[in-house]
Amino acid sequence: MSDIHPEPLTAAAFAPFGDVLDATADFRLINDGMCQRHHDRARLDFAAETDATNRPGISIFKATPRALPYRFDLIERHPEGSQAFIPMSEQPFLVIVAASPQDKPRAFLTNGAQAINLHRGTWHGVCTPLSAPGLFAVVDRIGTSANLEEYRYPQPWVVLAL
Amino acid sequence: MSDIHPEPLTAAAFAPFGDVLDATADFRLINDGMCQRHHDRARLDFAAETDATNRPGISIFKATPRALPYRFDLIERHPEGSQAFIPMSEQPFLVIVAASPQDKPRAFLTNGAQAINLHRGTWHGVCTPLSAPGLFAVVDRIGTSANLEEYRYPQPWVVLAL
Repeated sequence: MSDIHPEPLTAAAFAPFGDVLDATADFRLINDGMCQRHHDRARLDFAAETDATNRPGISIFKATPRALPYRFDLIERHPEGSQAFIPMSEQPFLVIVAASPQDKPRAFLTNGAQAINLHRGTWHGVCTPLSAPGLFAVVDRIGTSANLEEYRYPQPWVVLAL
Repeated sequence: MSDIHPEPLTAAAFAPFGDVLDATADFRLINDGMCQRHHDRARLDFAAETDATNRPGISIFKATPRALPYRFDLIERHPEGSQAFIPMSEQPFLVIVAASPQDKPRAFLTNGAQAINLHRGTWHGVCTPLSAPGLFAVVDRIGTSANLEEYRYPQPWVVLAL
């Protein structure tokens, strides 16, 4: 069975894979009450023990929008660090993750006001916006060692339309 | 003279204060050519030498939208770390910075596809979206020591409408 039904992204469902970063949980008010600060929402994790050059950085990704149904056969993971995807638009995007290459992947759909942080080593699909502009700020590992493992499924998966 | 004319945000004009993070400069193609990676665009800088607990983190800010003309009399800075503001919408926002409390502040207006990273210690105004949702991911210093200095001007400044 190669079909995957997309699920709404929630912190509880996503917990095995990473963090959901949004403005729904506890906050403190700053700036004379004009701003909610939802503090320290991502488990950033960069493998300094394996490579002393590892450090966090912010990069900008601009990805081609995809459409549902969406077919894929590739997942990847980054052994040297966590990777946060912060959408610079209010457009929902697709988040594909897998517990392992042997497990069926899961597909989550954001609500337009959520960023995610993939924990270090989480298997995931490539960046898949569903609308223009496909613009993201990405907080991930900057360093010199190899930081990409890929796995190609023998048969493609299809994320179904809602 | 208390009026400030807002300027378009450009990397050159903003260089004394911080980094402009956008998809305009050099990139490498990833994900089979489907994604531009504009690599490592922010000078992250967290003062490990003054406080060993300092580390970067990602918080979510939700700020009340303001309107132009915008009156303010407060600027602040963070001696322990840089601070990046990544808008989670395509709405332009206002960025107020000052070389020092004795210098006239400057006001920059983003183009809807720009994030910023304030360098460590840069004097700046509070988070000022100009439209809903006022949602930002903020990459800044997480730690236990004091990290806020404020300066209140004897007279308010006014950022004029365009």
